[in-house]
Amino acid sequence: MTTAEKTSRVQQWTNLAQQLRVDSIRATTAAGSGHPTSSMSAADLMSVLMLSHFHYDFDDPKNPNNDHFILSKGHASPLLYSMYKAAGAITDEELLTLRKFGSRLAGHPTPEIPWVDVATGSLGQGLPVGVGIAAVGKYLDKLPYKVWVLLGDSESAEGSNWEAFHLASHYKLNNLIAIIDCNRLGQRGETELGWNTEAYAERGRAFGWNAIVIDGHNYEEIDNAYRQAAETADRPTLIVAKTMKGKGVSFLENKEGWHGKALDAEQEEKAIAELNPQVRSMVFPVQKPANDKPAPEAAKQPIKLPRYELNSKEATRKAYGDALLALGAANPDVVAMDGEVSNSTYANEFAKAYPDRFFEQYIAEQQMVAFAVGTQVRGKIPFASTFAAFMSRAYDFIRMAAISRANIRLSGSHAGVSIGEDGPSQMALEDLAMMRAVFGSTVLYPSDANQAAQLVAQMADHGGIMYIRTTREKTPVIYSPDDTFSIGGSRVVYQSDKDQATVVAAGITLHEAIQAYKELQEEGITIRVIDAYSVKPIDDETLLAAAQEAGGKIITVEDHWPEGGLGEAVLEAFSQADAPMPQVVKLAVQSMPSSGKPAELIEEAGISAHDIVQAVKVLVK
Amino acid sequence: MTTAEKTSRVQQWTNLAQQLRVDSIRATTAAGSGHPTSSMSAADLMSVLMLSHFHYDFDDPKNPNNDHFILSKGHASPLLYSMYKAAGAITDEELLTLRKFGSRLAGHPTPEIPWVDVATGSLGQGLPVGVGIAAVGKYLDKLPYKVWVLLGDSESAEGSNWEAFHLASHYKLNNLIAIIDCNRLGQRGETELGWNTEAYAERGRAFGWNAIVIDGHNYEEIDNAYRQAAETADRPTLIVAKTMKGKGVSFLENKEGWHGKALDAEQEEKAIAELNPQVRSMVFPVQKPANDKPAPEAAKQPIKLPRYELNSKEATRKAYGDALLALGAANPDVVAMDGEVSNSTYANEFAKAYPDRFFEQYIAEQQMVAFAVGTQVRGKIPFASTFAAFMSRAYDFIRMAAISRANIRLSGSHAGVSIGEDGPSQMALEDLAMMRAVFGSTVLYPSDANQAAQLVAQMADHGGIMYIRTTREKTPVIYSPDDTFSIGGSRVVYQSDKDQATVVAAGITLHEAIQAYKELQEEGITIRVIDAYSVKPIDDETLLAAAQEAGGKIITVEDHWPEGGLGEAVLEAFSQADAPMPQVVKLAVQSMPSSGKPAELIEEAGISAHDIVQAVKVLVK
Repeated sequence: MTTAEKTSRVQQWTNLAQQLRVDSIRATTAAGSGHPTSSMSAADLMSVLMLSHFHYDFDDPKNPNNDHFILSKGHASPLLYSMYKAAGAITDEELLTLRKFGSRLAGHPTPEIPWVDVATGSLGQGLPVGVGIAAVGKYLDKLPYKVWVLLGDSESAEGSNWEAFHLASHYKLNNLIAIIDCNRLGQRGETELGWNTEAYAERGRAFGWNAIVIDGHNYEEIDNAYRQAAETADRPTLIVAKTMKGKGVSFLENKEGWHGKALDAEQEEKAIAELNPQVRSMVFPVQKPANDKPAPEAAKQPIKLPRYELNSKEATRKAYGDALLALGAANPDVVAMDGEVSNSTYANEFAKAYPDRFFEQYIAEQQMVAFAVGTQVRGKIPFASTFAAFMSRAYDFIRMAAISRANIRLSGSHAGVSIGEDGPSQMALEDLAMMRAVFGSTVLYPSDANQAAQLVAQMADHGGIMYIRTTREKTPVIYSPDDTFSIGGSRVVYQSDKDQATVVAAGITLHEAIQAYKELQEEGITIRVIDAYSVKPIDDETLLAAAQEAGGKIITVEDHWPEGGLGEAVLEAFSQADAPMPQVVKLAVQSMPSSGKPAELIEEAGISAHDIVQAVKVLVK
Repeated sequence: MTTAEKTSRVQQWTNLAQQLRVDSIRATTAAGSGHPTSSMSAADLMSVLMLSHFHYDFDDPKNPNNDHFILSKGHASPLLYSMYKAAGAITDEELLTLRKFGSRLAGHPTPEIPWVDVATGSLGQGLPVGVGIAAVGKYLDKLPYKVWVLLGDSESAEGSNWEAFHLASHYKLNNLIAIIDCNRLGQRGETELGWNTEAYAERGRAFGWNAIVIDGHNYEEIDNAYRQAAETADRPTLIVAKTMKGKGVSFLENKEGWHGKALDAEQEEKAIAELNPQVRSMVFPVQKPANDKPAPEAAKQPIKLPRYELNSKEATRKAYGDALLALGAANPDVVAMDGEVSNSTYANEFAKAYPDRFFEQYIAEQQMVAFAVGTQVRGKIPFASTFAAFMSRAYDFIRMAAISRANIRLSGSHAGVSIGEDGPSQMALEDLAMMRAVFGSTVLYPSDANQAAQLVAQMADHGGIMYIRTTREKTPVIYSPDDTFSIGGSRVVYQSDKDQATVVAAGITLHEAIQAYKELQEEGITIRVIDAYSVKPIDDETLLAAAQEAGGKIITVEDHWPEGGLGEAVLEAFSQADAPMPQVVKLAVQSMPSSGKPAELIEEAGISAHDIVQAVKVLVK
C-alpha cells in the first residue's frame, strides 16, 4: 500500500468515526436520553471494522455468509444505529427516532431491527450468544463467517462472560472475536480494573484465547488487531482496546458523570463543532460476503417417535431423551446441548447418535441457554437440558431470549420433591412460575412417557420459549402410544355425569390424583380428573366445562411451591373467562423439604393421593 | 520437628483420611445413593485441614472467631458428615441416617445442621458466599478467622465463581482460601480441563489470586500449601489439588461411571478391606479458635425515617435510598451492596455516608446476592440492590438463599414498562412472579415514598428473603409520613357503601387506579381502590371484605406480565379462603413493550387509568 493509499484509508476511517460520534450525539440529544459517551469511545473500533473487516449484506440479513455483529454493550445503541445510517440501511430521519414510541430503534437493540440477531442490554450476554453462532459456522454450516462481539469493560465482571471464554476456547472458535471497549468508566465511576488492559488480556489468555492489547483510537493498531484475529487458526481472539469515554469532545472525554446522559442543544452544538467532521451524512458501503456458499440443506424425514407399552413404567425424562433422539434422526437442523448432566437428562442418547450436533456446555447454564439462542439465530432447532432447578441459573438469559424473539426449547428434569434423596438444592419448585412468567412461553409438564414424547416432538415445530418439565422417577404409562396430545390441550382421565368435584393435576401428581379417584370411588364419591399437561397455554375450555359440570369445585395439586404454578394457572384461566368462578383449593408444597424417599416427601408435602382424598371430602361435604 | 514427629503427623493425617473414606462409603451404602467417590478424592485435603489448620468450636458454632468451611461441591456431603463424626460432633449412628427421611444429613448440606453456614448443591455458589463471609471478617468484625471453600473442578465452569475470583481479589481477601479438588472426572466423563491443574492456577493468577498447584494426596504438599495460604497478606489463595476420584480403592480410583453411585454391600466390604484403616471410629479433636475476641457490638439508635410532603412527588427508589441511609445511621449491623448502579438505585446515599459498610459488587448480580448471604452468616443485615430486571440473573442464588434460611433484603428498582425509554431489556416484568415463588419470601411493592420508607425500615427486622420493587418515575406522595404500613397489610384508598367493584393495584398502577376512580366518580360509578403494597403476604382479609361488600367484582392491575404477579396473588388469596370466589379481571402487560415515554407505554400495555375505567364499565354493566 502506498503512503497516499494509507493516508486515504486513515482519512476514511476518521471520516466514518467522526460521523458515528456526531450521529450518536445527535440521536441522543433528539431523544433526550441515552448513552452518547459510551458510543463515542468505540467509534474508531467500529469505523475500522465496518470499512475494512466486516462483511454483511444489509439487503439480505438472512444471507448465511454474513458476518455477525453483536453489540453486547447494548446501551451503546446510538453507535449501532449510526452505523446503520452510515451503511445506508436507515435514514437520518429514522436515526432521530431513537427511543421514541413506535420506533424500532429502542433504547437497547432488539431484533425488531432486521440486522440485530439478539436483544442486548442485560450485560454479559452478547459473548455467550456469539459462542453459539460461531459454533454453528465452524461445525455445522461450515461457512467462513465471523462473529464480532463488542463488550464494555464493566460487563467483564459478569460471570457469564467467563463461561463463554471457557467454552469458546474449548471449541477452538477462531471465528469469534471479542472486542473490549476499555473506556475505564462504568455507570457510577471507575471500573475495578480501570485502564489495566493487560489484566484483561491475561485473563483471556488464561482462558485459552489469543489476546491483543491496543490503543482503541489508533486506526493502524485496530486494523492490525482485526487482521491478526482473522488469521488465528486455533482459538478465539480477544482485543482489549484502551479507549476514552466521550472521545473527541473536550468536555466529555474521560470525564465522570456523563454515563447515560444526553447533551442539551447547546452542548450538542459545541460538541459537533469540536468533532469537526469532514462529512456529515455520507454513506460508507459495507463489503458484502465474498463467499456465496449456501448453508447446508436439512433433509428431513418423518419422525418415528418412541412407543411405551401401556401399564409399563418409564420416566418422562427418559422419554425426553428418546424423543430427542428421534427428532435428531428426523431433522438434521435439530441440535442439542446439556449442562454436564446428560446422563441424567438423557440428552446423552442424542449426544451418542449425533455427536456433531451435540454441544457439551459443562456446568454453565447461562452459557447453555445463550448457546441455544445463538444456534437459532442460524436457523437451528436447539434443545437444551439440565436439572429443572438449575434453569433458575439462566433466568435472565431466558428473559432476554424472549425479548430476542428466540425459538428455543428447554428441558428441565428432576422436578419437585419427588426426586427424593438428593434434597432441596436439586428440587425445582419454582420452575413453573418462572417459566410461565416469560413472554410468549409455553410450559409443558407431561405425566406419562408417550405423552412426553409427543410433546417433545411438537416443541420442535413451535416458536418462542418452550419449556418441558420432566420427572426423575419412573411413572406408570397410562396412555397408549397412539393417543394424541397437543400444546394447549389437556386430557380428561376420569369423567362422569355424577362428578362432585374436579382434580386438576400434571406430571407426577396426576398419578396421585388417579389413586385418589380410585379411593374415593370406593367411598362412593366420584370426581373428575384432568391431566393439565399443558400448563401454559392451559386448556380453559376443559376447565370451564369441568367447573360447570362438576359442582363448581376444583382441587389443583402440584409438586411445586403454591405460587405461580399449576394452581395459579388454573385460577388465571377462570379469571379470564366470562363465567362464574368455581371454588378452587390448591394443594402444593408448603414447607421446605429435606431428603427422603419420593413417596415420603410427596406425603410430607401434602400432595399425595391421601391429601387429595381429604381435600375432596372437605370440599364436597 | 523431628523425623519421628513428622512420621506421627503423617500417620495421623493418614488415619483420619482413611476413616473419612471408609465412612463416606459406609454412609452412602447405607443410604443406597450418594457420592462416595467425590468424597474420597478430597479426603486427604480435608484430613490435613481438620487436624492442622482449621479452628472451630463445634460446641459453639456461633463463636465469632470460628473459621468457616464451605463445601461448595455439596454432593460430597458424605465427606463433610464423616468429618463431623470424626470431630465428635455427630455419632456413627447419625452418620448412617444420611439421605433418610427425617435426618438432618440431607443429600446436600443445609443449615439444618448447626455447623453448616449455607446450603450448597447448586454448584458455583460456595465461593461467592465465602467472599461475603471473608469480607466481614476483614473489614467489619476485624476478626482473624479464615474462610475455606472446597470446590469441585467441574464447577469452575460456572461463571459465578469468576465473579467471586474478581471480587475477592479486588477486596484483597487474604483470609479466603479456595481449594479445587481436581479429580478430573465430572458427572458424565472428563472435565474440560482434566488434570491440567496449571490451567486452573493460571486463571486464578490472572484474576489476582495467589495460586498453588499441589498433589492432593501428598500430605506435606497440602500442609505447606495451607501454610502458604495463611501467610499471604494481600490476596486470596487458590490451591489446585490434583486428586483421584475414588482414591484408595482399586476399582473406584480414577474410574469413569462411578459418579453419584453408592457401593453395594459386597463392594463396600472389598473397598474397606483395601483402605485397611488403622482406626475406624476415632475422634480427632479440632482445634478451637486461639483468639477469643468478641465481634464488635452494634450500638443501635432509634431510626429517623425520611419524610415526604403530601402531594409532592418522589420516586420510591429514592425513598429506598433515603430509608437505607436512615437505617445505616440507626444500626451499625446494616450493610449494603449494589451491582454498579448505585446512582440509579440510590444505594449511593448509604455508600457515601457509610463507605466501610458498603461493598461495590460491580456488574455481578450472582456475586451480589451471595455476598449478602455471606454477611448474614456473620449476623449482618444486608441490603442488596440493582435494577429489578437483573435480579433474574441471581435467581438460583435467591432460591438457594431460601434453602440456606438466609435473611437477606433485595431491592429491585426500575420495574415495569413505566421505566420508559430504556426498553424491554431493562424492564422487570417477571420479578413479582419470580420472587413470590421463593420459599418464605416477602414481596413488597410500594406506591408512595412515605410507604416505601416505612417498609424498608421493617425489612431490616424481618427474616427470610425480603424483596422490594421500586419505581423509576417520581410519583405523587399520597400518604402522610405519619401513616403506618406494615408487611402483610394493605391500604384501602377509596371505600364507600356504594362500591360496585374493587380495583386492586400496587406501585405505579395505584396512581392509575386513583385516576380511574375520579373519572368513574364523574360518571356516577363508585369503586373501591385497594393499595396492595404487600404482594406476599397479601392482605386476604381486606380483599375478602371488598369482594363481599363491592359486588363480588375485582379488577387487578399491574405493571408486570399476567403470570405470577399481583393478579395471581389476589386470586390465590381467594382460593385459600372459605368464601365464594369473586369475579376477577386481570389487567397486566400483554405484549412485548419497546421504548417510549412512561405514559405511552402504560397506555399501550393496557394498564392505564383509561383501561381500568373501561374494565370497570364492562364488569359492572
